[in-house]
Amino acid sequence: MTSPEAREETVLSAVAERREIVNDAIEESLPIAEPERLYEASRYLLDAGGKRLRPTVLLAVAEALADQSPESVDYRSFPDLTGEPVDVMAAAVSVEVIQSFTLIHDDIMDDDDLRRGVPAVHREYDLETAILAGDTLYSKAFEIMLDTGAPAERSVEALDVLANTCTQICEGQSLDVEFENREDVLPEEYLRMVEQKTAVLYAASAALPAILLGADDDTVDALYGYGLDVGRAFQIQDDVLDLTVPSDRLGKQRGSDLVEDKRTLITLHARKQGVDVDDLVETDDVDAVTEAEIDEAVAALEEAGSIDYAKETAEELVANGKARLDVLPDNDARRLLEQIADYLIERGY
Amino acid sequence: MTSPEAREETVLSAVAERREIVNDAIEESLPIAEPERLYEASRYLLDAGGKRLRPTVLLAVAEALADQSPESVDYRSFPDLTGEPVDVMAAAVSVEVIQSFTLIHDDIMDDDDLRRGVPAVHREYDLETAILAGDTLYSKAFEIMLDTGAPAERSVEALDVLANTCTQICEGQSLDVEFENREDVLPEEYLRMVEQKTAVLYAASAALPAILLGADDDTVDALYGYGLDVGRAFQIQDDVLDLTVPSDRLGKQRGSDLVEDKRTLITLHARKQGVDVDDLVETDDVDAVTEAEIDEAVAALEEAGSIDYAKETAEELVANGKARLDVLPDNDARRLLEQIADYLIERGY
Repeated sequence: MTSPEAREETVLSAVAERREIVNDAIEESLPIAEPERLYEASRYLLDAGGKRLRPTVLLAVAEALADQSPESVDYRSFPDLTGEPVDVMAAAVSVEVIQSFTLIHDDIMDDDDLRRGVPAVHREYDLETAILAGDTLYSKAFEIMLDTGAPAERSVEALDVLANTCTQICEGQSLDVEFENREDVLPEEYLRMVEQKTAVLYAASAALPAILLGADDDTVDALYGYGLDVGRAFQIQDDVLDLTVPSDRLGKQRGSDLVEDKRTLITLHARKQGVDVDDLVETDDVDAVTEAEIDEAVAALEEAGSIDYAKETAEELVANGKARLDVLPDNDARRLLEQIADYLIERGY
Repeated sequence: MTSPEAREETVLSAVAERREIVNDAIEESLPIAEPERLYEASRYLLDAGGKRLRPTVLLAVAEALADQSPESVDYRSFPDLTGEPVDVMAAAVSVEVIQSFTLIHDDIMDDDDLRRGVPAVHREYDLETAILAGDTLYSKAFEIMLDTGAPAERSVEALDVLANTCTQICEGQSLDVEFENREDVLPEEYLRMVEQKTAVLYAASAALPAILLGADDDTVDALYGYGLDVGRAFQIQDDVLDLTVPSDRLGKQRGSDLVEDKRTLITLHARKQGVDVDDLVETDDVDAVTEAEIDEAVAALEEAGSIDYAKETAEELVANGKARLDVLPDNDARRLLEQIADYLIERGY
C-alpha cells in the first residue's frame, strides 16, 4: 500500500514532468498572432498557470496504450498501435485550450474577479475582449485537434468527441445556474450536472488518445468511463474540501458554498435527511460569516451523514474508474492513472 | 440584360424557395433539448427570421456542381461527384448556426438591444444565457457539420475550414473594435477586417459544398474566392446604404455610422482626401441628428468621391467574384449565384 503522501508526491512530480513540455506546446500551437491584444487575452489564463492535469491524463493514457515510458517519447511523433506517428501533444493542448475557454466564459457568467491568483480575463481586459478571447480559443481548439496527423477516420471521431464535450459542458453550466433557483434538486440530478460540467472533459482527455492511436471501441469506452468517474469524484471532493479545509489553505473562505447557498452533493443529501439547509448559515455575505457558524453548520452536516455520503460516493467513483483501466497493459503509465484517480480524492486542497 | 428589379425578384424567390426547408432542417438538427431554457435561447434568433442567404449560396453551389435543379433534389441525400449521397443540408444548417452564434455574441459586445425586429438574446434572456447560448451553437455547428455522411477526408477538410472561419471571424471582430479607437486605419486594413468579420463565412458557404462533394482544389479555391469577393461587396454596400437610403426604409437613422464615428470604406477614403471626417456630423447622438445635417455630410462625401469609390470597389469585387464561377458547369444554379452577387450590391436595403 502506498501512503496518500507518497502518492501525492508521485502524481505531482509526474504532472510537473509533463507540464513544461505542455506549456511549450501551448506556445507553439497558440502563438501571439494579430490582433495581438486578442491573442494576449486568449493566452492570459493559460500563461497564468494551472496544473495541466487533463493533458497529463491524456499523455499518460497514450503512454500506457503504447507501453512507452515518458522519458523515451516524442509526443509530437508518438507511435500509434500500428507504429505510425501521431501528434498526441496537439490533442493534449486542444483539451487544455477548451478548459481555458470555459474558465474565461464561466468567470464572466459568475462575475468572479480572480482566477489562478490573477484577475479574471474580463477584469484584466474587458467584457468584449473576454467573450472574444473565449470564442477564439474555442475554434483554435478544433484547429489544433485537426493537427494530430492521425488518419482521417480517427480525426473525425476525435472532433466528434470534442464537439460533443463542449455541448455537454454548456448544458452542465446551464443546469448549474438553473439549480441555484431550485430547492428540489435530487442528488442524481446534481451528479448528472457535474458529469456534464466537469467530468466530460476528463473523459475526453482519457478517450481521445485511444481514438487517435487506433485503439478498439471497448478500450475507448472504458477510458471514457474512467474519465467520467474520476472527473465526478474530483468535483465532489472539491465540495468536501470547501467544508473541511481551513480558509488559509483553501485560498478562500471555508464554507463559502454554504454561505452562497450553492447546491452540492452534501447539502442535497442533507436536505433529503430533513436538515434545514437554507438556514445552516444565516448570512449570505462570505466576508461576514464567522468560523464558529461554519463549524456549527459542518457539525450538522456530519451529524446527518452528508459529508461521509459525499466522501463515500467519491471513493466509489474512484474505485470504479480505476477498475476500468483493466483495458490497458500493465505498466508505469497505467499505475500513474490509478494514482491520479486516488490523488483526486485524497488531495488536501 | 436583366433589370435589377427582375434580378431582385429572381434572387428573393430562389431564397424563399429554399428557406422553408432550411428552417425545417434547423429544427431537425437543433431540437429543443434539455436544458430547455438553454436551447430555447439558442434557437431564439434562428427562429426570429433571417433570409438564409448563406445556406442558399451553399445549396446553390451544390446544385451547380452536380448539375441539379432545386426541384429535383433531396439535399439530405445529395449526389456527390461520384454519385454517393452526402447531406449538404447539414452543412447549410451548420453555417447558419455559426452565423447565429456570432450575432448573439456580437450583440452583447456592441450592447445592441434589437436584432431582426426582436430583442437581442441578452435582453430577452440575460447575459449568462446569451453567452452560453452562443457557446452551445458553436459546438452544435461542429457536431452538425460532422453529420454530412461525407468520406472522412472531406469531413476533416470541411471541419478545418469551419474552425478557421470561426477564428477569422473572431479576429475580424477584434479588429473592428480596435479600429474604433484608431484614426489612421487604411482602406486596405478596413477591407481585411471586413474580409475576416463578414466575408469568410460567405467564402465557407461557397467552398464547403465543393469540399463535401469531392470537387478538386482549384474549384474549391475559386468558390472560396467568390464568397470572399461577394461577402466584402455585401459589407461595403451596407455602408453605402447607411448613407443613401431614407431612414424609414432603412429601419434605423440614416447616417448612423457617421453619427457613431464608425470607420467605413467611405469615411476612410474621405479622410485620405483631406475631408475632416470627425466633424462631418457634430452630434454623437443618433436621436438628435437632423436630416439636414446628414444631407450636408453626404454631400461632402460625394464631393470627395468617397461614395463613388465605395460603390466602384463593391462593383469590382462582384465582377471578380462572378468571374470565378467559371469553374462551375453552365446551368441555372450557377446563374443564380451570379444573380446573388449582383443583388448584394443592387439591393435597396
